[in-house]
Formats: sequence, C-alpha cells, structure tokens
Amino acid sequence: MNNPQLNDKGELIHLLTLEGLPAEVIGRILDTAVPFVSVAERDVKKVPLLRGKTVFNLFFENSTRTRTTFEIAAKRLSADVINLNIGVSSTSKGETLLDTIDNLVAMNADMFVVRHGQSGAPHLIARHLSAAGQTGIHVINAGDGRHAHPTQGLLDLFTIRHYKHEFSRLTVAIVGDLLHSRVARSLIHGLTTLGTPEVRAIGPQTLLPAAIESLGVHVFHDMADGLRGADVIVMLRLQSERMKGALLPSAGEFFKHYGLTQDKLALAKPDAIVMHPGPMNRGVEIDSAVADGKHSVILPQVTFGIAVRMAVMSMLASS
Amino acid sequence: MNNPQLNDKGELIHLLTLEGLPAEVIGRILDTAVPFVSVAERDVKKVPLLRGKTVFNLFFENSTRTRTTFEIAAKRLSADVINLNIGVSSTSKGETLLDTIDNLVAMNADMFVVRHGQSGAPHLIARHLSAAGQTGIHVINAGDGRHAHPTQGLLDLFTIRHYKHEFSRLTVAIVGDLLHSRVARSLIHGLTTLGTPEVRAIGPQTLLPAAIESLGVHVFHDMADGLRGADVIVMLRLQSERMKGALLPSAGEFFKHYGLTQDKLALAKPDAIVMHPGPMNRGVEIDSAVADGKHSVILPQVTFGIAVRMAVMSMLASS
Amino acid sequence: MNNPQLNDKGELIHLLTLEGLPAEVIGRILDTAVPFVSVAERDVKKVPLLRGKTVFNLFFENSTRTRTTFEIAAKRLSADVINLNIGVSSTSKGETLLDTIDNLVAMNADMFVVRHGQSGAPHLIARHLSAAGQTGIHVINAGDGRHAHPTQGLLDLFTIRHYKHEFSRLTVAIVGDLLHSRVARSLIHGLTTLGTPEVRAIGPQTLLPAAIESLGVHVFHDMADGLRGADVIVMLRLQSERMKGALLPSAGEFFKHYGLTQDKLALAKPDAIVMHPGPMNRGVEIDSAVADGKHSVILPQVTFGIAVRMAVMSMLASS
Repeated sequence: MNNPQLNDKGELIHLLTLEGLPAEVIGRILDTAVPFVSVAERDVKKVPLLRGKTVFNLFFENSTRTRTTFEIAAKRLSADVINLNIGVSSTSKGETLLDTIDNLVAMNADMFVVRHGQSGAPHLIARHLSAAGQTGIHVINAGDGRHAHPTQGLLDLFTIRHYKHEFSRLTVAIVGDLLHSRVARSLIHGLTTLGTPEVRAIGPQTLLPAAIESLGVHVFHDMADGLRGADVIVMLRLQSERMKGALLPSAGEFFKHYGLTQDKLALAKPDAIVMHPGPMNRGVEIDSAVADGKHSVILPQVTFGIAVRMAVMSMLASS
Repeated sequence: MNNPQLNDKGELIHLLTLEGLPAEVIGRILDTAVPFVSVAERDVKKVPLLRGKTVFNLFFENSTRTRTTFEIAAKRLSADVINLNIGVSSTSKGETLLDTIDNLVAMNADMFVVRHGQSGAPHLIARHLSAAGQTGIHVINAGDGRHAHPTQGLLDLFTIRHYKHEFSRLTVAIVGDLLHSRVARSLIHGLTTLGTPEVRAIGPQTLLPAAIESLGVHVFHDMADGLRGADVIVMLRLQSERMKGALLPSAGEFFKHYGLTQDKLALAKPDAIVMHPGPMNRGVEIDSAVADGKHSVILPQVTFGIAVRMAVMSMLASS
Repeated sequence: MNNPQLNDKGELIHLLTLEGLPAEVIGRILDTAVPFVSVAERDVKKVPLLRGKTVFNLFFENSTRTRTTFEIAAKRLSADVINLNIGVSSTSKGETLLDTIDNLVAMNADMFVVRHGQSGAPHLIARHLSAAGQTGIHVINAGDGRHAHPTQGLLDLFTIRHYKHEFSRLTVAIVGDLLHSRVARSLIHGLTTLGTPEVRAIGPQTLLPAAIESLGVHVFHDMADGLRGADVIVMLRLQSERMKGALLPSAGEFFKHYGLTQDKLALAKPDAIVMHPGPMNRGVEIDSAVADGKHSVILPQVTFGIAVRMAVMSMLASS
C-alpha cells in the first residue's frame, strides 16, 4: 500500500516505475501532457513552471539522446539544468552514490533525473531522500538496468491514446528483444494498468524473459501469428552487442524472422500504428519502407516524449 | 537560380556557404551584425530575439572553440542551447544522420549549427528539411570538411570592411595552407562576390589547390612578391598533422618561407591589417611580434565573430 | 602593498588566494554570503545580479564537483555559463594559455573561474588582464596546483563562523595530507588572518610540508595530542594516488593512526564540529559514524559553498 512514488494526498512525488502506479495517476500524467504538446509549437516554447529550480541530469550511464529530451523538457519549463556525467566524476574518486546525492541535495537540488546501469538505483535514491525527510526533492527514473524506463512507457501510452483514443479494445504487439528491454517492461505495466485486453510479446525464445506470461502477456514465436489483428505494433531496438553473443545468429537472420516489413505489417489491422523507441536499426528490426511509411508514428513519439517529460516534471514540482 | 539558402522572398533561411550568396545578402548580414557589436559591450549583454527557441550545436567533429562562439551568440540572443557531441552519441549506435535530425526536429528544434568532417553534410540536412516541408527550421554550417566555413568567412569580411570601409580597391593576400582550408575558400568567395579586385593566394605548390586560379585568385609561391602592396594579409593556420606528412619539410622551414615576420610585413601597405582565424601557431605561420603588433586585428576578428553569428541567427529566426 | 586582488578603492577584483587578503575583505565576503544562503531556500532560487554576464568555467584539470558548484552559483545569479574543459580543446592544438584567454576576452567574457594543475596559473591570467587594462574582467581561482583553493577556504571559514560565531578563542585541528592540500593552505591563511589563536596540523611527517610551522601552525604527529581540546576538526581527503607511492604504508594503516573515529573525536571539545572538503573516503580518513554523526557539518559546508561562491561572484561583478 505504501507506494514510494505517491505522497499521502496521492500526488506523484517520484517517477520510478509504472509498476504499481494507479491508472488514475497515469491518466493524470497523460492529461497534463496534452497542453505541453502545444507549448512546443508556440513561437516562444517556454513556460515558467520550474523557474529558479535546479534539475540535475545524473547520468551514470551515457545516453545523449535521453539526456537531451530531459534537458529540453527542463529548459522549456525554465529550470536551471546541470548535466552530470557521473561515470567520469566523483564515483571514480571512490565517493558512494548516496554521498554524491547528499552533496547535490546540500546544493539545494530540486530534481534528479537518474540513468543508471543497475536496476533499482533510482529507488535507492528516492528511499534515501524520504528517510532524510527531503520531501521537496524529486527523482525521475530515466532508465535503470533492465528494470524500467517509465517516461518512455508514458510516452508510448500517450502515443497510443492519441491515435487510438482508449485502451479497452486494443491488441498491442511488442516485437523483438524483450529480455533486455526496460522499455518493454514499462510499457507492459502501463498497458495492463490501463486495461488493455490483449498484449502480445513476439520474439525468439532467447530474447523473451522466462516469466513474461505472468505479466499478462501472450507469447508468440511466429511473427505472422503475433501481428494478426494488432492495433499497435511496438518494435524494440536490437542492441548490436546481443548479435555478437550466443542469443542471435545474425542481424540478417533476425530481420528475416522478426524485422517489420510491409508484408508482415499487412497482417495487422488496416489502421495499425507502428512504434519504435529509437534509435532505429533500419534493416535489422524494421524496414525503411515501414519506418517512413504512413503507419509509422515513430517521430510523433519523440514529440510526445518531450511533452510527457514536461508533464511529469511540472507535476513533481507542484507536489 | 534555386538557391537553397534563400526563400522566395530572398530572405536567408540557411547559411551553408558563401559561394553563390548574392552580394546584397552578404551586405545585409554585415549590416545586421553592426549593432550586435555594441550589445556585447553593454552591461546586460542579452537581447530576447531567440527567446524560447531551441538551438542545437551538432558537432560531429570536435571543436570547442567554434562551438563556444555559437553557444555565446545563441545565449546572448536568449535561446536555449543544447550541445550535442554527436561523435559519441547516436551515430555510434548506428543511427543515420538524417534519423538523428528527424528526431531533433520532432523535439521542435528551431536551429541546427552543424560541424561535420564531410563536405556537404549541412547541405544534406538543409535539403532534407526542405523536402519535409520544415520551413521554420534553419541550418548554419559551422565547418564541413574542406568545403566551407561561412561564418568565419563573414567575420573576416566584417573585419575587413570595419578597417578598410569597402572592397573595391583592396588587395587581399591569403597565406599558407589553402589546400585544406575551408576558411580560405569561404573568404575567397565572399571577397570576389563583394568585388575585391585583387585576391592573392601565397604558399608552396603542395598547399595550394590545383584549380584555385579558377576562383579568380592570383597565385604566388614567393611571399615577398605576394605581400607587396597588400591592404589585408590573412594568415592561415598550419595544422600540425600536415607537417608530419609529405606536404611540408618542417615547421621551421615553413616559417622561413611563409611565416609572417615584421620584415615581410613591411612589404605590404603601411596601413595593412593582419588577420588569422585562430588558433595561432606562434613561430610557425606568424611571428609573435606581428601577432601582437599594431597591424594585427586578430582579436577584433573574434569579437566580430560573435556579432556576425548573432546576426545570422537572428536573420534566420525572423525569416 | 600592491595586492592584485583589490582595486584602489579596496574592492575585490579577483579572488586568487586568501594569502594576503585583509581580514576586512574576508569578513565582507562572509557577510555578503549570508543572504545568499536564504536565496537557495526560496521557491525561486534566482537573483538577477549577473544577468547578461558571461561566466567561463575554464577547467584545465577535470573536477566535475567543483565546476558544478560554480555553475550552480553563476546560474542562480542569472549569468550565462560556458563550461570549457580546456584539456581537450585549444591547448591541445598548441595555443598558449594567454592566447586562449585573449580569445575569450575578445568574446566579451566577464568572469573566468579557473582550475589549473599548475600553481600560479590564475595569477598569471589576472596579471595579464591587468597589463591589458581589462579592469572589468574578473578571475576566480578554483584550485591551482598545490597552491590555493580560496573559495573552499572561504566556505570553511563561513562554516566555522556559522557554528562558532567568532575565531578569537578557537582551536582548529587540520588532519591528514596537508602536503598536497591547497584546501589546507587556503584555510590556514584565512584562519590566521581572522585571528585564530591555535591552528594545528596533524599527520605523519611525510604528509606535512617542511615549512608549515612558519605559517603559525603547531605540528602534531600524534592524533590524540592534536585533537585534545579542539573546537573544529578539519579532515582532509587522502588521495588514493598517495597511497600507492612511498608516502604511506596503506589505507588501513593510515586510518588506524589518523582516521577520525568516535573515540578520537571524544578527545576534542564536546561541541566540536567536524568538517571535510569532500569527496570523502569513508573508512580511510573518516569513519562513517563520525561522517554521519551529530558533530559533522560536512553537508552544511556544501550548502555554504554555493552561497560563498555567489557572494564572491556578485562582489566581483559590482567592483
């Protein structure tokens, strides 16, 4: 019952994972993101909601792309943003993670955007802040190990809701390397919370987590079977390091079986949308004709990603 | 007739090269830069012309110095600036250049400042944006391969006009490694467009492009001959990597023949100005007594460089 | 008499070292810092004192932690901040330090925060600016070689004054590697200037500078003797590279003799405060029970560090 992401008024105080986040809170985040889409279309793309706040991008794992989306979101909210690539900083001097956090708290940080190679690091930070009574400082998980990437999950949900309007009649197919994908885990939690009746995981045995069916997901090893009747297809990025290992024969082999081509896409519903968290490997998990085709909503995902991050940050700051 | 840098009202929409840019447009940029010189001398060095705009410094090739000048210019125009060192980012994850651009466009970018090792990369981006109908997003070439470095060319022109008032009676001598110099190429195009009657290229055969005379330049291998009567001397940076190769015997040898000393400077007009794009190799292409002497306008070039970049950015943003 | 840090009205124009800085000036900095502590507690942590000014963080030696404190301070004063990691920039292209400075001055820099591996580099820059008549441009030493780290010294003094109210009856014990510590040197100068009657240096012979007693410091090799009756204990960071050399047997051995434990702390006054410049090596120079205990003011030091840096920057900007 004690959700570390909510205060006793039910307001969001940290965003750590979509697992266990009530549908009502997810819905509130998505609703809050709507007007931020239009802020980004204005001539002056800036609102003063975080003016005078200090947001730290704490990236213990390098990800220019994700860091950039948070940096843009924070700057459009008028925050002061400090980028810390911690891999090359204090940690290398033997300082512990929590000492680093305590120091930044002492500098009157308002928000931490945390990317970390180890699952659970953002939770650890949030718990530490709670224990210290620091209720005004907020943590956003920007990807931890194989665990969660909740803002990516939220932007995926926002995109689906934008095009499909609701979740209660949808079939969503997630394709590829679910085993290593925090993106997939976050999206699955969000989809089931919002009442999506049919969520499918499509991929070779070696790239699907053993216990995935316990999350309420139907497993398909044959892509044609899995795509049939889908409203939404989410292609996952295949990390090249996987292809060097024992998990996969080759990129060409993978594309043959699980790459999304126009032929395979034709098995889904005629108005199906195609999503991808980026960066894409064209010709590995997705064919260019599909990536750039009329079913693709891959670039709108990016646009909505900024709006969703602005929504999360502004809700945290006002909690 | 179809100049990708201008819209159909003749306004500057991208700055890719000075080649083919009409004299009238170059003149407008230089005129626009004049008041920005005084903005930088104010107590509050800031104007709100780009407030709420997002400028991306996309540096596929590292150059702290050039990036800094654009970062300062954009911040003094009140833009939000995002620095992306793309060498270490998505490209290394296999994403294509144009996918990276599409993603940043989806984040509602307003302007790209692009530095790239390959000639033509900024043009490619500009053409891609046009094809996608993205007329509100602007590209500035901050140096591409050996091709062009138009803001450097513009600041050189601004400096010459500042000290010499006009171009129609000038002799301009450009000295050193013209073969590898995008700075020289941009300056030559600008000078000829603005009607400079005598542009000279001075250097050893191995460092002068074969076809340089077709640009309207007179070639000199003897420095004394080339400097005689010059109003403006532009010394180019000699990259140390050239000296290791077959192109040059040694730095000492180069300095003896083509290094600018006070003796050689005395061959030019008594009121000649000495320019250098920086960073200087003192004792290689220029003697310290000249670099710090009364003919040197090397530091004013830097000051004017900020103003010229502010001018270009503000013109693009208002097109 | 000619103090390069003060102008002829006695105003601070550079902050290079606490050595030779009059007590009155140090007191003025500490007084100015007081209200900045509360700025950082406000909802909008921002004042417009440096609006439209350009502050360059020139770090010739990497230090994310120190750079971050200056970046936060400058941003809360509304300055535009440009971070330059010079190790990887122009210097590597053969440009001299002073050419780099001249270029940034030509870009209308207002303030340089300089970290450099060589003692005296910030003085060199300040002298160069003076010689050029650049009276409106200010230098802050953010650590030079083994010489000085004056803002760290000032935040230490601020912390001591905050908890102990004055200096004239205090015993201050500084423990550990004083030999390599610019932090210790700056603090000792500040303490003696402000009239601290008893300053002690505690450490093994190999880690104490030969001439330290000439600074008015009492040397102790036995920690128990040195801590007895202390009001303030300043633990210094032990750099791991020292432990690999001949100067120290091992981290365990060091901790046994000079690590601050609760037992040893009990020898000091009952209301003694414990300080550390960070980042801490827990279990090497300080025990976690002490670092996190009720005598520790290590995190308040960090908070005061931002306020002191804001104070210095605002005084420089208004001189």
